[in-house]
Amino acid sequence: MDKLFVIKIGGNVIDNEQNLSTFLSAFAAIPHRKILIHGGGKIATKIGDQLGVASNYVNGRRITDDATIDIVTMVYGGLVNKKIIAQLQSKGCNAIGLTGADANLIPAVKRPVKEVDFGWVGDVNTANIPVDTCRLFLDNGILPVFAPLTHDSQGHILNTNADTIASSIAIALSAAYDVRLVYCFEKKGVLEDVENEDSVIRLITKDKYQQLLSENKLFAGILPKIDNAFAAIDAGVKEVLIGDAADLVQNTTAQTLGTLITN
Amino acid sequence: MDKLFVIKIGGNVIDNEQNLSTFLSAFAAIPHRKILIHGGGKIATKIGDQLGVASNYVNGRRITDDATIDIVTMVYGGLVNKKIIAQLQSKGCNAIGLTGADANLIPAVKRPVKEVDFGWVGDVNTANIPVDTCRLFLDNGILPVFAPLTHDSQGHILNTNADTIASSIAIALSAAYDVRLVYCFEKKGVLEDVENEDSVIRLITKDKYQQLLSENKLFAGILPKIDNAFAAIDAGVKEVLIGDAADLVQNTTAQTLGTLITN
Repeated sequence: MDKLFVIKIGGNVIDNEQNLSTFLSAFAAIPHRKILIHGGGKIATKIGDQLGVASNYVNGRRITDDATIDIVTMVYGGLVNKKIIAQLQSKGCNAIGLTGADANLIPAVKRPVKEVDFGWVGDVNTANIPVDTCRLFLDNGILPVFAPLTHDSQGHILNTNADTIASSIAIALSAAYDVRLVYCFEKKGVLEDVENEDSVIRLITKDKYQQLLSENKLFAGILPKIDNAFAAIDAGVKEVLIGDAADLVQNTTAQTLGTLITN
Repeated sequence: MDKLFVIKIGGNVIDNEQNLSTFLSAFAAIPHRKILIHGGGKIATKIGDQLGVASNYVNGRRITDDATIDIVTMVYGGLVNKKIIAQLQSKGCNAIGLTGADANLIPAVKRPVKEVDFGWVGDVNTANIPVDTCRLFLDNGILPVFAPLTHDSQGHILNTNADTIASSIAIALSAAYDVRLVYCFEKKGVLEDVENEDSVIRLITKDKYQQLLSENKLFAGILPKIDNAFAAIDAGVKEVLIGDAADLVQNTTAQTLGTLITN
């Protein structure tokens, strides 16, 4: 099968113009099929503040009300996404900017109300992602760039976690490609010593993970990322890479600098 | 050749939620290949005002400065475009929301500075529109919906007249399809008596146009629209229809209610 890289970047890349430009040059240079998923960054909060839309939180979780979904649709789906596309096009990369509503690429449901009503927040329906439509783009050299938005098939846009979109797409497309899911974050990789960037654990298998856990060697904050990585692998993704956006080029080769997670 | 309808709507449809929903139901029901181009409506001005971005005009022409291009990118490319896509998807229409930067679908150049510097405004390079990419979407049942934005291939989004985008796409795709270009506006069609909506001139050929001009029967404001229609026809478009958005279904059949312009 052909290789596919599904790459997620967050606010630390998007909020810094120089970091973003450097990252997009690296993304453009990857000589394989590739999909980018970007988070929102701080600009949505800034524009929301300017428009007098207050952020609402319940139990520390952000609520997406009517005014907020309009702002994130504007900022993530419009401003951030289209700036990325214009830059990638200028770097010779035939990118297309999308939300999950476009061509119904990421069907989702509004999160059911339990203790908390999160508002216009989506839970992805991974099984219904149209693999053929994704292939139509990828196999014709058109590279999707997703804003963290989906839709409910009832006319509403839904605010959706970018990490979840990345893993859902990686899982859906693992039927058609050898998928490496790449999470860019603020460290070089999973560190054995959180104070030491040179202590990257280069390879984590399930056995190695159990060993690291039993030796109590991992920073608690990284555990959900590793658990999610193994969940993606159990669902068909070949490997997951956690690393620094600045190391993207190397992290899409066999000579990875970040942490490669595999069975 | 297969039929293709290239349909443009403006602010009078977009600014009214009920009009927009009715129009989108009609668009979804057209049993042919179709492309929608939407203008911006008043919401960009409203949000610009709320964000403290003043509209700049020189000689009555709006200037798109740095702050303004960000606002129209957010509002046209994000809010308006994605709301339309979510609604079309809910109506069973597999729409995809795009700007001209996406997949490089509408290459443009920043308008050269002569007497006036219009700022980030684009002039479409019709000859470079990638017909094969458009066909890839249309022939696979994916229906493009364009915001009035293009790009300069140097990393910048450009504010671009929606009528021009519509005619450029119609011209470029006339090599592959029998194209009817449909302009929705606030009247039933070109009126012989501007006060009387029942006086629609149902067919205008070039001969008929010369006759109407010589008889001084046309409202001056409509002449540029008819001139642009004949320019599109001279460049390969089969026919142009000017009519009311509410009559869309009929205006995409042989029994048109608006004004059909043809050679």
